[in-house]
Amino acid sequence: MADHIEPLERLADMFRRLDGVGKKSAMRYAFCVLNFTENEAREFAEAIMAVKTELVLCKHCQNISDTEVCSVCSSINRNKSVICVVEDPRAVIAIENTGHFGGTYHVLHGAISPMKGVSPDDLKIHELLTRLNTEEVTEVILATNPTIEGEATAMYLSRLISPLGIKVSRIANGVPIGGDLEYADEVTLRRAIEGRYEL
Amino acid sequence: MADHIEPLERLADMFRRLDGVGKKSAMRYAFCVLNFTENEAREFAEAIMAVKTELVLCKHCQNISDTEVCSVCSSINRNKSVICVVEDPRAVIAIENTGHFGGTYHVLHGAISPMKGVSPDDLKIHELLTRLNTEEVTEVILATNPTIEGEATAMYLSRLISPLGIKVSRIANGVPIGGDLEYADEVTLRRAIEGRYEL
Repeated sequence: MADHIEPLERLADMFRRLDGVGKKSAMRYAFCVLNFTENEAREFAEAIMAVKTELVLCKHCQNISDTEVCSVCSSINRNKSVICVVEDPRAVIAIENTGHFGGTYHVLHGAISPMKGVSPDDLKIHELLTRLNTEEVTEVILATNPTIEGEATAMYLSRLISPLGIKVSRIANGVPIGGDLEYADEVTLRRAIEGRYEL
Repeated sequence: MADHIEPLERLADMFRRLDGVGKKSAMRYAFCVLNFTENEAREFAEAIMAVKTELVLCKHCQNISDTEVCSVCSSINRNKSVICVVEDPRAVIAIENTGHFGGTYHVLHGAISPMKGVSPDDLKIHELLTRLNTEEVTEVILATNPTIEGEATAMYLSRLISPLGIKVSRIANGVPIGGDLEYADEVTLRRAIEGRYEL
């Protein structure tokens, strides 16, 4: 069968391991690579290896970084007294893209989930507490995801951190900007009403 | 900025070169690779290089192949007297997936397009004519895409091949199975009516 061209199949299989890539897309991507120049293909292959070999976790905030201390932690323009706690590095990128947060981060690399067998010990919570004990921190913003696991993790951290006399806050829930009330789910809408602010 | 982690950015840039991959998907894929084991990443990198280094064009049908003569051309179960002419290897895979074609293929690697500067000399037409002159071919099925370029290419080939006394046919146009007449475009619907068959 012509669709069993082994190297092409093998590459398509690799593409299928990426989140949200189905059979057809994987094959389309494999054909794209086929049309790459040999240099482009080499660049691609090297970029894949580089992600595995050149990246480490920042020793302060545990975010992925290509330096021992990440650019946020080493910046003199960031407010080191505010730490925004997130589940994963993607959340850091999302918040950085807003351009409206001047503090630092702490990446947990997951959320507490008894269902998935993730306990607090599996997360970078110990590293967070070390920072809170050694750095001058005035506020911890809990920006874990608004899911059951994220909420549970936020609750857990809040109980750990509050006794240290550090202000603990949680990002707001509500109707997303540009969204339509009609399509907002009940819980979100309830939170939006509860969290209403005076004009 | 945390979103400028160089190796991750570089990999996302490579993913963006794939058809239909936008900025967000590219970054998502790069993060997936980050979560690969080192072995998986190496396998991925090698698969990319293999596609560029291990694949050649079958010397008969010009389809991509990992052997000098592809599996279709070398099979004793295929009817060598019928050649299905297609624009690219993806069409071969699509037709093979139907499981209803027992002939061989000829891949043009494109279609005639004055707009894109593709002339007949840029396609594997010379190789097709060589096959028609040296092999015992009774029918050529023109299965180029139902686009302006594909139709023009089919017309061009038909004029070249008909004088050789070989039957030339074109794949049918019509309403796709499972489609809804309401949503079919006018040209398709006109072709479907013109191509009606008696029951």
